[in-house]
Amino acid sequence: MRKFNLKNSTTANVASMSGYVPGEQPSTRAWVKLNTNEFPYPPSPKVRSAIISEIGADASKLRLYPDPLSSSLRRALEKRFGLPTGFGFAANGSDDVLNLAVRAFTDSQKSAVSLDPSYSLYSVLAKIQNTKFIEIPFKRGMEIPFDDVISSGANLLFFTNPNAPTGIGFPIEAVERFAKNFNGIVLVDEAYSPFSAFTAAPLVKKYDNLIVVGTSSKGWGLAGMRIGWALANPKIIDILDRVRDSYNLDRLAQVAGIAALDDEAYYAKMRVKIISEREACQTFFDSLSWPYFKSSSNFILFTPRDAGGKSGPKVAANFFGYLRSRKILLRYFPREKSINMSLRISIGTHVQMEKFKKAAKAWLKEG
Amino acid sequence: MRKFNLKNSTTANVASMSGYVPGEQPSTRAWVKLNTNEFPYPPSPKVRSAIISEIGADASKLRLYPDPLSSSLRRALEKRFGLPTGFGFAANGSDDVLNLAVRAFTDSQKSAVSLDPSYSLYSVLAKIQNTKFIEIPFKRGMEIPFDDVISSGANLLFFTNPNAPTGIGFPIEAVERFAKNFNGIVLVDEAYSPFSAFTAAPLVKKYDNLIVVGTSSKGWGLAGMRIGWALANPKIIDILDRVRDSYNLDRLAQVAGIAALDDEAYYAKMRVKIISEREACQTFFDSLSWPYFKSSSNFILFTPRDAGGKSGPKVAANFFGYLRSRKILLRYFPREKSINMSLRISIGTHVQMEKFKKAAKAWLKEG
Repeated sequence: MRKFNLKNSTTANVASMSGYVPGEQPSTRAWVKLNTNEFPYPPSPKVRSAIISEIGADASKLRLYPDPLSSSLRRALEKRFGLPTGFGFAANGSDDVLNLAVRAFTDSQKSAVSLDPSYSLYSVLAKIQNTKFIEIPFKRGMEIPFDDVISSGANLLFFTNPNAPTGIGFPIEAVERFAKNFNGIVLVDEAYSPFSAFTAAPLVKKYDNLIVVGTSSKGWGLAGMRIGWALANPKIIDILDRVRDSYNLDRLAQVAGIAALDDEAYYAKMRVKIISEREACQTFFDSLSWPYFKSSSNFILFTPRDAGGKSGPKVAANFFGYLRSRKILLRYFPREKSINMSLRISIGTHVQMEKFKKAAKAWLKEG
Repeated sequence: MRKFNLKNSTTANVASMSGYVPGEQPSTRAWVKLNTNEFPYPPSPKVRSAIISEIGADASKLRLYPDPLSSSLRRALEKRFGLPTGFGFAANGSDDVLNLAVRAFTDSQKSAVSLDPSYSLYSVLAKIQNTKFIEIPFKRGMEIPFDDVISSGANLLFFTNPNAPTGIGFPIEAVERFAKNFNGIVLVDEAYSPFSAFTAAPLVKKYDNLIVVGTSSKGWGLAGMRIGWALANPKIIDILDRVRDSYNLDRLAQVAGIAALDDEAYYAKMRVKIISEREACQTFFDSLSWPYFKSSSNFILFTPRDAGGKSGPKVAANFFGYLRSRKILLRYFPREKSINMSLRISIGTHVQMEKFKKAAKAWLKEG
């Protein structure tokens, strides 16, 4: 008779870990949902047309496997970011790309490093891979401790730019300094770059250790379709191709991604609106004397102060709960000590942002 | 200045491997495509309706993240396979599930085992994970060497049933014998079970080490949408949840999967047609005295004999090329020695199968 014990049959690292917990996704649409940095407007009308066309009269194309390489989507990425053929790579959301990088470039000998705070998924992926994960705190004023990162001994650097969850954007010189000096792969996670002034994409032609990662979720209004990408030297792309799933993107996601990248005019217009709401929200926080990080993203990390001027985890939790009871959903990170006195607000439509501001004022009066 | 060498920065196992090579996916529709075991009919009309409804008038739902748990799809799977709540799990194709199992249940200490021949992806996934992969050959007449598998010392067993690439289906007693006696996780890969007499799904209620894996690609006409699943004890599902991508299935794939599972009447009718064509094709091979494995799948592995009665790798390659030049695409595995005298034909529509038979007869005349 067999001897079976699930814990013993599970790898030690997975047996002792918890999965990544994403932000809440309420199933009704009654919410003012400002918790997971989604684009507040629908995707380009071209996206809808492209999907409908691929489905056709009887959806018969869906019975056939998709292009395993997502070749047309790769070409669309290269065109959009001004890169030669062979520099583009597509995957099932940018989280998928992050996972592939961990699998290809880290193991028990090769560790990963990121600044703290950064996107909290990195450490979960490292745990699954059973690799060492080094977190190096930002210096005072959220300055980058370049030397500490470069001398960390890690083989894979995750550099979130603009940063999450602070929203701070770093100049392209920061990326270049890492690419020039880090003894390993420099992965720049640019999920939020559509809301900042620049992308490091052109640098992948110059640096053979640089991977620029992007997603259609934040800047192209397609979080529901799971389309992410990597831009890098073709030799790096070859490595990512070895470890990815053969058919990693379905037919509808591939055509949706292509259509979105092809309608820059629409997205440029919508991003102007989002950036304008972001600036207005920061002015609002100024008017209340609430501290926040000046954002280059589509969200703001801010620290609410109650009517008596107090801030802290309890105040943040109280304001979060107050908003939640009024169907306004922000993101709160109670377990992350460096930011648990703050809340993160995704920039929504004008109407949504006005609702938030009104509720904030009411909380101050009632509190 | 940095020291960077891509090979040194890549894990040793990934640096030395090649990726999995999937079957050819021609970009035009001019082919009689019988090479990757796709369903020859469109998916249920309910699938099209469900996707169109989710897209809506302006595709605005696509801007929102999907349900990270694919909860409704899990409930649809549990209903379809008669299992209690908590036994269903959905992922980006069944390849994704296989990958998650390798990550959760194998490492440098815990190895994987499968019978040979089986689905060739297993060994690629083991290589990425840097785990030992044991292949145990089938006995004469494709009998299962139960004792060799059970005493292999592996922690994860991949049991493909019906088998790929032979198409042979094994009775449920074989699954039960493994579940009862194997000291680790027994993963039954049932990609082709819609074309056989049974599924081992009900056994997951009885055996806490059993995972039954399925896909909508073969039996539900949705290869283009990447919807796979696992059925297992909730404790195993919890482990898979820890290592999966948070948003592993996009919105349209989730609703497509639910709609397909909900239209068993349509699929039952179409599968009868496919099974009938399969039986007719076997009769055709009998008439030519071409050996084949009696199939419980939607494909047949057969050994072509030329006009002089000869078979072998050269004959197979010749017949494959002959068909290819006539836009009829089968699958040939030149590098797999145990089957390189054979070809695999996916069962198509009646019209497609007649074209194949006609071409086979012409080849015999011309050859």
